[in-house]
Amino acid sequence: MNASRGKTNESVVASLHEVAEEMHNKMMKGTAPTMSLPVRTKKNIEFNKRLGVFKYGKKRSIRDATSLRSANQLLRALHIIEFIEEMIDNGKSSTLREMYYISEAWGHGKFGSQNESNNLAEDLEIVTKCMREDFKLRPEEDGARMIGDITINERNRKGDWMTINARDDVGDSGYGVPYNVESEKIRLIANDVDFIMAIETGGMFDRLVENGFDEEHRAGLLHLKGQPARSTRRILKRMNEEWNLPIVVFLDGDPWSFRIFASIAYGAIKTAHISEFLATPSATYLGITADDIMAYDLPADDLSSKDVEALKAELSDPRFADGWWQDQINMMLELGKKAEQQSLAKYGLDFVTDTYLPEKLAGLGLI
Amino acid sequence: MNASRGKTNESVVASLHEVAEEMHNKMMKGTAPTMSLPVRTKKNIEFNKRLGVFKYGKKRSIRDATSLRSANQLLRALHIIEFIEEMIDNGKSSTLREMYYISEAWGHGKFGSQNESNNLAEDLEIVTKCMREDFKLRPEEDGARMIGDITINERNRKGDWMTINARDDVGDSGYGVPYNVESEKIRLIANDVDFIMAIETGGMFDRLVENGFDEEHRAGLLHLKGQPARSTRRILKRMNEEWNLPIVVFLDGDPWSFRIFASIAYGAIKTAHISEFLATPSATYLGITADDIMAYDLPADDLSSKDVEALKAELSDPRFADGWWQDQINMMLELGKKAEQQSLAKYGLDFVTDTYLPEKLAGLGLI
Repeated sequence: MNASRGKTNESVVASLHEVAEEMHNKMMKGTAPTMSLPVRTKKNIEFNKRLGVFKYGKKRSIRDATSLRSANQLLRALHIIEFIEEMIDNGKSSTLREMYYISEAWGHGKFGSQNESNNLAEDLEIVTKCMREDFKLRPEEDGARMIGDITINERNRKGDWMTINARDDVGDSGYGVPYNVESEKIRLIANDVDFIMAIETGGMFDRLVENGFDEEHRAGLLHLKGQPARSTRRILKRMNEEWNLPIVVFLDGDPWSFRIFASIAYGAIKTAHISEFLATPSATYLGITADDIMAYDLPADDLSSKDVEALKAELSDPRFADGWWQDQINMMLELGKKAEQQSLAKYGLDFVTDTYLPEKLAGLGLI
Repeated sequence: MNASRGKTNESVVASLHEVAEEMHNKMMKGTAPTMSLPVRTKKNIEFNKRLGVFKYGKKRSIRDATSLRSANQLLRALHIIEFIEEMIDNGKSSTLREMYYISEAWGHGKFGSQNESNNLAEDLEIVTKCMREDFKLRPEEDGARMIGDITINERNRKGDWMTINARDDVGDSGYGVPYNVESEKIRLIANDVDFIMAIETGGMFDRLVENGFDEEHRAGLLHLKGQPARSTRRILKRMNEEWNLPIVVFLDGDPWSFRIFASIAYGAIKTAHISEFLATPSATYLGITADDIMAYDLPADDLSSKDVEALKAELSDPRFADGWWQDQINMMLELGKKAEQQSLAKYGLDFVTDTYLPEKLAGLGLI
């Protein structure tokens, strides 16, 4: 699967016009316009063999302008289409929050909450097969930061291409990945690393940087900042595909980290319509595993009732259906414990880079 | 007040040894060691006329090794002192979270929660008149990011000084401010701006960047990321003092934003022992003010009961004692509303840079 997309502004506007045109045509024929969308829940995601990722299945819900609520949604969709076209014309972008406030001027199309406007933006992605980035819409959250011998070109806001090496040209906080990492904004130029390690917490990222792990083990380090933004998953995907670099994921050991991994490797439920652009099926979960908690006798906390609930939900999640994951999840449930990646500091500040990571990476055949 | 500090590793270790020595001497004399610390609450902060910031007042609590709990605290303090000295010797640093886990090996000195270890690190700052950065301890949170024609030198982990311009040498996500911005790590080299604007949300920071506000109005832009980290407040202070640049603060309009401003301008309650290094008394609150909500008819949310409680607490907070703040707080209470800075998007994506900010900055005499 080639993840390059190369949507032009013109093709995006054309796709949006199609949506409006279809509604218009139906109304001209005297029928109520409709919009048909996949059901976006865990129960409706399926493994797509050709793409190697999880996508929405066949269950669909239909929006029909004969109900007031659905008619409002269609009206809002038309307003969004107009707003996106304006941004494309003016070379602008907008946060999802700004779009929510912009809807103040849309009369009956005004959103009741930001959740509504976010979901509708995702609906439009599904219908047009575009991505939010094509619509010039972006989230609030920060992107990842990266350190290692990786050279990229970034096109800055003036349209100039800048060359940035994520080891030599940045301070200790690293290269900040922008919200849009498509090829019109970011080009992957060169690297001198053997693999990319994606890390959940800033504390662990900084530990690996301070200990020089990236140089000693020829690694590119990427701080995920918790639940990874789309741009984070997308740049991991691109580095994996364009550079053929293995992606290793180093997270806390709890049910939420398992979910983070699933969104990186298999596709997130909310973005299953674009899993082929965001998910990296060959990514490997390095730790903290449930067996690590025992093997390394890590300081651990009791699972909360929410943790247990999340683990049980994962047992029936199709993305965790394979034997290794079922074992890990059941082991954590039995153990009744979770552990943070920084708990490795129990054995001193260098234990993670001198002992834990080399042992785990050797187990994966990566060093 | 000159905010430069220039503590050497040797002087930090000497200060820590003094603490240990004092305990040792008392024990040799057969008396129980004690540690006397200021009470760290809103009720015990006072305006310091000489420094122009809020500092702890005279109320003190005494830790006395005749109780088991206090004896444990003193034991922990000694372990921390040893740990810090080791880090200084080895050129290492540690997150506060790592230190908490490291205490697993300290027997009776093991911390029960990270809150305990964080507080004790702050206690040691107070006793030694050092800063946490001197101890090589750092938080988890990310530092600010900055865009504008500002040139700094940053000493990287190899000890080399790098020159970085926060407009020309960085991507759209800007220059990431590291956790330590003391002079041994960061040098302020040159700037071509008229003022610094500190901004609460990433969405608004990105809006100003996209609209070219920094270039048009000769501004340095800094993204606070909510409650600002120490390094963020410290670099604002340094730019204000070393470059004589006005600091303008642009936040949401709610009680929590007022608190953010107080921590920037007057000193935070938790760090009142080092207010003279972190607070910038001349910083100005630009908005969103309670009158902005009315004057610009902004989309606003009802105050929650927690908001009302926070506003009422601010009315009796000595930092908000002046007339302007009392008016703003009372106005917000009367109005019963709060508004986000991104709500300005009601009037379109350019309203904030074309209308709102120029009007407000003109009111302050800054443009």
